[in-house]
Amino acid sequence: MEKIEHIGIAVKDIVSAGKLYEKLLDTVIYKIENVDSECVKTAFLQSGPNKIELLEATANDSPITRFIEKRGEGIHHIAFDVEDIEAEMQRLKQEGFVFLSDKPKPGADNKLVCFIHPKSTNGVLIELCQTRKDMPM
Amino acid sequence: MEKIEHIGIAVKDIVSAGKLYEKLLDTVIYKIENVDSECVKTAFLQSGPNKIELLEATANDSPITRFIEKRGEGIHHIAFDVEDIEAEMQRLKQEGFVFLSDKPKPGADNKLVCFIHPKSTNGVLIELCQTRKDMPM
Repeated sequence: MEKIEHIGIAVKDIVSAGKLYEKLLDTVIYKIENVDSECVKTAFLQSGPNKIELLEATANDSPITRFIEKRGEGIHHIAFDVEDIEAEMQRLKQEGFVFLSDKPKPGADNKLVCFIHPKSTNGVLIELCQTRKDMPM
Repeated sequence: MEKIEHIGIAVKDIVSAGKLYEKLLDTVIYKIENVDSECVKTAFLQSGPNKIELLEATANDSPITRFIEKRGEGIHHIAFDVEDIEAEMQRLKQEGFVFLSDKPKPGADNKLVCFIHPKSTNGVLIELCQTRKDMPM
């Protein structure tokens, strides 16, 4: 775990939330990207070595739709940067952490990602992410 | 806003949660501190340039007790590191953000802190924190 790579925030309207977080962080959104496999639209802002990822659902069965219906808008997950996602998954499985998938999969912002079940981690949805080495930055 | 200073996670039992986050982050808790004014016990772990702050209530009327009763354990707030907390409060008030207090106050880990109301920020409780210059590190 190198650092907090980003914090994911579930929002209803990524345009108005984007403007608000641009004011808050005194910066501009540097990337907007759809992740069709997760049914989300994402917008990224930089904060020093870290990022904020805003997440808007693009379908009624998106995990973000369900999250907002249940809890309202708010912090959805913490993502930690890892050097070798497969090795880190193996280390954490041996420590008893439960993952939502067996293998990492492509995520937003040129990453390979996987998630730890919040039941393993005091209600916090934790993502591991590794920069993809097969893709240009 | 320099970076994410820490993420605060509300937990029921800081001892068991602390052991779990030590395994997760492959590190050890470097500080345990009570903040009596907020009725919380805190434990800090480093993750690169960022920190994780575990928060356990020390009284029934602690904000952490109310948070856990309402939403269960989970991410309580994001704290951003600022150079000059008074100037940053003034900038953000002019942008329309609403603060929970008029002035910064002493927080854990040798900081001056203030909080933005989650209604201003898509349900996210945001803390600004500045290292206290009147205290030794």
